[in-house]
Amino acid sequence: MRFAGRVDAIGSSAIRDLLALTSAPEVLSLAGGLPAVETFPTQRLADASARLFDLDPGSSLQYATTEGHAGLRAWVAAREQERSGVACDADDVVVTSGSQQALLLCALALCEQGDVVVTDDPGYVGGLQAFAAAGARLVGVPVDEGGLDVDHLARRLADGLRPVACYTVSTFQNPGGATMGEDRRRALAALADRYGFVVVDDDPYADLWFDRPPPAPVRAHTTMTAHLGSASKIVAPGLRVGWAVAPPELRSALVRLKQAADLQAPTLGQALLAELFADSQWFESHLAMLRTTYAARADALVDALVSRFGDRLAVRSPGGGLFVWASFLDGTDTEALLPVALRHGVGFVPGGAFAVDATHAGALRLSFATNPPHRLAEAVDRLYAATTDLATHR
Amino acid sequence: MRFAGRVDAIGSSAIRDLLALTSAPEVLSLAGGLPAVETFPTQRLADASARLFDLDPGSSLQYATTEGHAGLRAWVAAREQERSGVACDADDVVVTSGSQQALLLCALALCEQGDVVVTDDPGYVGGLQAFAAAGARLVGVPVDEGGLDVDHLARRLADGLRPVACYTVSTFQNPGGATMGEDRRRALAALADRYGFVVVDDDPYADLWFDRPPPAPVRAHTTMTAHLGSASKIVAPGLRVGWAVAPPELRSALVRLKQAADLQAPTLGQALLAELFADSQWFESHLAMLRTTYAARADALVDALVSRFGDRLAVRSPGGGLFVWASFLDGTDTEALLPVALRHGVGFVPGGAFAVDATHAGALRLSFATNPPHRLAEAVDRLYAATTDLATHR
Repeated sequence: MRFAGRVDAIGSSAIRDLLALTSAPEVLSLAGGLPAVETFPTQRLADASARLFDLDPGSSLQYATTEGHAGLRAWVAAREQERSGVACDADDVVVTSGSQQALLLCALALCEQGDVVVTDDPGYVGGLQAFAAAGARLVGVPVDEGGLDVDHLARRLADGLRPVACYTVSTFQNPGGATMGEDRRRALAALADRYGFVVVDDDPYADLWFDRPPPAPVRAHTTMTAHLGSASKIVAPGLRVGWAVAPPELRSALVRLKQAADLQAPTLGQALLAELFADSQWFESHLAMLRTTYAARADALVDALVSRFGDRLAVRSPGGGLFVWASFLDGTDTEALLPVALRHGVGFVPGGAFAVDATHAGALRLSFATNPPHRLAEAVDRLYAATTDLATHR
Repeated sequence: MRFAGRVDAIGSSAIRDLLALTSAPEVLSLAGGLPAVETFPTQRLADASARLFDLDPGSSLQYATTEGHAGLRAWVAAREQERSGVACDADDVVVTSGSQQALLLCALALCEQGDVVVTDDPGYVGGLQAFAAAGARLVGVPVDEGGLDVDHLARRLADGLRPVACYTVSTFQNPGGATMGEDRRRALAALADRYGFVVVDDDPYADLWFDRPPPAPVRAHTTMTAHLGSASKIVAPGLRVGWAVAPPELRSALVRLKQAADLQAPTLGQALLAELFADSQWFESHLAMLRTTYAARADALVDALVSRFGDRLAVRSPGGGLFVWASFLDGTDTEALLPVALRHGVGFVPGGAFAVDATHAGALRLSFATNPPHRLAEAVDRLYAATTDLATHR
C-alpha cells in the first residue's frame, strides 16, 4: 500500500511513545497531560445518566445534529459572551469531539498544501499534528513568560511572511505554562485583522486559574479568530466534548467538515454535560475545587524544583493549567536525561518533543495534575538523583 | 477569510437539508438513517454506567489510548475472525468515533489530491464526503440487486482506470439495500490484489439480516482491505463508537491520523459497549430482537409499496439493514416529488442525493427503521397521494 504524504507529515507523537515508557507502575509520571481522576464528578454523572436513559433515551443515545446539543451550545455561548465581552449566540458554537477535533477541522478548513501557519514554539504536539495533517508548513514563534512573542511575529509579517492562521494556546500554555497578556492579545488581534489570518485560540485551561482569571480571549479584539474550549479538563476527557466559537463563514466550514469527519460529537457526553452545567451553583463549586487542588499541586512542584535545583534550573511558575515548564541552565540535555530519569522512577516530557523551529534541548515539561504534593516532592527527588547520575557518567 | 478547496469539495449534504424539512411533527419521515430508539438497551446501559462510575471512573472517563479499549478490540477481533474465517487479533482493530470517522481516516491515509476512488453509485453520502474531503476524484460504479457491479469495475480497470481505493457498503447497502454476493466479493478482492487498490468495506448493517447472514466480508479474500464496523445500528449511535480492521501498515497510518483527528474515541461509549458485549447471551438475544423488529417493518413497507404502486414502481426487497430502494418506472422525478410529498406529510430521500455519476432521478430511498408497520402503511398512502397530485399538476 502507498500512503498519502500527510501520514508522514504528522510524524509519530514523541509524547505517545514516552507515555508508554512512563506508564510502568514504579514510575512517578509527570509526563502525561491528564487531569486528576479523583476530581471527576462521578456521582453527578451517574445520576445524570440514570435520569437520561430512563426519561429520554433519544436525547442521549440517538443520532443528533452536527452542530451539537442546543443546551450545551447555549451554555458555551453565554460563558463566551461573559468572558469576551462580545455578543455570542448559541449559533456561533460548534460542538466537537474534544477540542483536538476542533484543531483538525480548523486546519482542514484553512490550509491548502504548503500554506504557512505560525505557531507557539514550543507548541502543543496535537495541535501541530493537526495542522501538519492538513498540509500546513509550520513556522515557530517563540513563547516567553508573557506568552507568544507577538513583536517577533510582527517582524516576520513585516518581512513578508503570510500565514493563513496563527495557532496558539493563549492561556496557561501547553507546554510552556505561560499566559499571553492583554496587550499582546490586542496586538495579535490587530495583526490578524491587518494581514488577514485567523487566530486559532486553543483555550482548554482558562477555567483552571489559581489566583486570578486570565485576560479576555483574543475574540474580544477581533472576529478573525476561532476560540476553542473543552470539557476535558473541567469535567472529564473520556466524554470527548469540546467546542469552537467562530464567525459564521468559518463555523459553516467547520460543520461541513465535521459531517465528513464523524457526523457529530457524542450525544451521550453532550447530554451529560448539559445536565451538569445546568446546575451553575454546583459547577462553580466544582471549578473552585479544581483550582484549589491544582494550585496546591503546582505550588508543591515548583517549591520542590526550586529548593532541589536552585540556580541550575529556571522554573516558570504557572498561573493555572496543568504544567510547569523548566529549563536547565547547566547544559543538561533533557532528551539524554529521560532514560536515566525513568531508571530512577520518574517520567517527564523533554522540551524537544514540542519543538517547531527551536530545539528546547535543555527544557522539560512537568505535569503536576495527577500526583498529590508528597508524590510530586518524591518525583523531584528522583529527578535530582537522575541529573546527578547523568552528570557523573557524562 | 479564504477556505481550502476541500470545504467546497464536500458539498453540503442534501440529506441534511432534507432531514430539516422532514422533522416537522406532522411529517411521517422515511428519510433518515436512524435506528429505532425503542430498541436501545437503556436499562443495560444505565446499569453499566452506574457500575463503571462507581467502581472505576478512570476506565470510563479518563483519556485512553488512540487504538481503543482493549476489551472492545478483542471482541471486534473475535467476531471478525468468526465472520471472515481469517485470523484476527485485537491489534488489528482501531476503534473510531463512529464508522464515519474510519471513512475519513481511510480517505486521508490513502488519497492524495486528485487520486481516483471508485465507489458505489448510488453511494452513501457521508462516505462520498469523506473521500471528497481528502481530495479524491470519485468515479461511480453501478450498484444493482447483486451489489457493486464488479464486472463493470473490471472493465474500467482494464481500460486503464487506476484507483487508490474502492469504497463500498457491501452488505444491505445504503442507499440501495443490495448485498454483494460471494462471487463478486471474491472477484473484487482479486481486482484489489491485481491493481493494488484498497477495498474500504463499510459494513455497519451486517448483523441486521432478516433470513440469513450475509456472505463473509471482502477481508476473507484479500488483505488489501479495511473492514469497517459500528455499534450505531446494533446498540446506539449516540455512543459514537465504530471500528476498522486493517492490515498493519494501514492500521498504523489510521492511528497516527486519529491522534491528530480527535486523540481517541469516547472512553465512556467504549467502556459501556465492552460491558454490554461481554454478556454474549444477552447480546445475541438483543440482535434477534433487532432482526425481528426490522424484518417486520421492512415487510410492511415493501408490501404497502407493491400493493399501492404495482408496476409503476420497482421495489428492491432488502435482506436486512434499514433501507428500501425503489425506482419509478413511469417517469416520476423524485426530486420534484419531494416537496409535494412533504405537503402530504411524508418524507423520503430522492435518489439524486446519492448520485456519483448516474442521476437516479426516478429513484428514492425509504427507511423503515423508525416507524411501526401501521405508520409505514400510512406513509405509503400519503406517498401515493403525492404522486397522484404531482401527475395531475404536471
